Amino acid sequence: MILTVTLNAALDITHRVDRLRPHAAHRVCEVADRAGGKGINVSRVLRAFGHPTLVTGLVGGGTGASVRRDLARAGLAQHLVPVAGETRRTVAVVDARTGDTTTLLEPGPEVLHEEWERFRESFDALLLRAGVVVLSGSLPPGLPEDTYAVLVRDARARGVPALVDTSGPALLAALPAAPALVKPNADELVEATGRSDPRVAAEALRTAGAEAVVASLGPEGLLAVTPQGAWRARPAERLRGNPTGAGDAAVAALAAGLLAGDTWPVRLAEAVALSAAAVAAPLAGSFDPVVHQRLRTRVDVVPLPRETGETPCPS
Amino acid sequence: MILTVTLNAALDITHRVDRLRPHAAHRVCEVADRAGGKGINVSRVLRAFGHPTLVTGLVGGGTGASVRRDLARAGLAQHLVPVAGETRRTVAVVDARTGDTTTLLEPGPEVLHEEWERFRESFDALLLRAGVVVLSGSLPPGLPEDTYAVLVRDARARGVPALVDTSGPALLAALPAAPALVKPNADELVEATGRSDPRVAAEALRTAGAEAVVASLGPEGLLAVTPQGAWRARPAERLRGNPTGAGDAAVAALAAGLLAGDTWPVRLAEAVALSAAAVAAPLAGSFDPVVHQRLRTRVDVVPLPRETGETPCPS
Repeated sequence: MILTVTLNAALDITHRVDRLRPHAAHRVCEVADRAGGKGINVSRVLRAFGHPTLVTGLVGGGTGASVRRDLARAGLAQHLVPVAGETRRTVAVVDARTGDTTTLLEPGPEVLHEEWERFRESFDALLLRAGVVVLSGSLPPGLPEDTYAVLVRDARARGVPALVDTSGPALLAALPAAPALVKPNADELVEATGRSDPRVAAEALRTAGAEAVVASLGPEGLLAVTPQGAWRARPAERLRGNPTGAGDAAVAALAAGLLAGDTWPVRLAEAVALSAAAVAAPLAGSFDPVVHQRLRTRVDVVPLPRETGETPCPS
Repeated sequence: MILTVTLNAALDITHRVDRLRPHAAHRVCEVADRAGGKGINVSRVLRAFGHPTLVTGLVGGGTGASVRRDLARAGLAQHLVPVAGETRRTVAVVDARTGDTTTLLEPGPEVLHEEWERFRESFDALLLRAGVVVLSGSLPPGLPEDTYAVLVRDARARGVPALVDTSGPALLAALPAAPALVKPNADELVEATGRSDPRVAAEALRTAGAEAVVASLGPEGLLAVTPQGAWRARPAERLRGNPTGAGDAAVAALAAGLLAGDTWPVRLAEAVALSAAAVAAPLAGSFDPVVHQRLRTRVDVVPLPRETGETPCPS
């Protein structure tokens, strides 16, 4: 079973309006609610493939109740720990004329120390049933930066490899706990390391403790730096669509590949194809199965030389 | 007890953002949730005066649960009937730099016939404890235009006078049931009657069946056309602030005055003062008690001649 952790789960609300005009009142012509957060999206993708998966994390209030209901509706097994605060909402206002989206992101509930202790106990029990654990997304207010480091160590103590998909201080603080894999995107790589070359930045994250680094570079595919070697994996075609959730689809494939013991080239090809198929689908956590089938045998996976320095500027 | 009915209750969400820019992602720096809907605002004002009041209406889903919780927090007695659909949300995005507000209004849940039947049974039982009933706001999808007419007749059958504060077809359909009072604002008067002169329009609503009409004319105060005569009531000072909820405060005062058997000039003075005090407070359903005390003895209530025609254009 692949256990996904979403500490800052969300209720993702989509409001379709005729045209968004600041300072006006708008009748919403279409409303859609969906349980969100990166770990939940990873579980959605895994479930679509029939991979056993369980959603854990923290939820609270009426919004938390809506998240639980939507997960049940989607057939996703869940073991969420209640908090007193209200689960955050995200509101995506879609302009029906242009398709453009404006988003409002709430910060999430302040997590209390005793709630966190309760989560760790529950997490430890769930690890006994898990083959891989995925730690995804931002931390809610009240949890310290080293939260993922603590959970990676808990998982390691139970012999469960951990994948971490987060950014900024939470990512940096997780590295000394030696996660099996971290998956930053291009912006997060630069933000975390201050290095503009993805290969150099990825090596820096490994040096800081990550066993393997897979960086998602948007339409350029993936860059992997691992104990078994380094690779670039590129899709055979460029897809247009909704990039939200493409990273979560890649993480789902990487977690499933790790559990199956696939080689890195196989894992990377699957992750690139699934990521591209997610871009072709309208909602995060979903993917286009036709695109996935078409692309999975047509990903260009190229090994890279083991060591590299930053390319010097031409003089 | 004053029974307030909010058939399309709402969870009013306020999102404070640094600056609203269409098509961008915004971190919400402050979130506030509050049970909303016009009847609920009326009960909030009544409760602040220690008038016994009970909130009824329809709520559903996680949003409905949040509405119930907020009413309990506010100490408001409630007897809400559950529906399968999700209670609507309103999102007010406040630009922290300018204070300007952009709002998104969801339509509300589709009410099923059996849910409506259950509400009417519950309403009939509550009428036995009510001295006055207030029917406020828009109708949720699925309920017919004559919904308020049905409830006004139910109340009449129990000897309970009904105040109706709604607009458009729901207002027009309520009139033949002879509500004790309707309270349109200036725009709603014109919309309902097609007449631009408020006095003429108010007389038209009486002719159509309302026993009394009190029109709220913004900073110009109130116009009352009643079986006991007609009046204009104006505040002694103009207040700047938030006009949302000013009409609900006026309705609260008019309901309390009806229950107390006050004369129309006393009711109107109180309604104008409370309405102005609501403008001076930041949230709908609240008012500034200092402004209320200052204004209540200084409202200019002037009787109007009994009959009038539209003022002819100067030739």
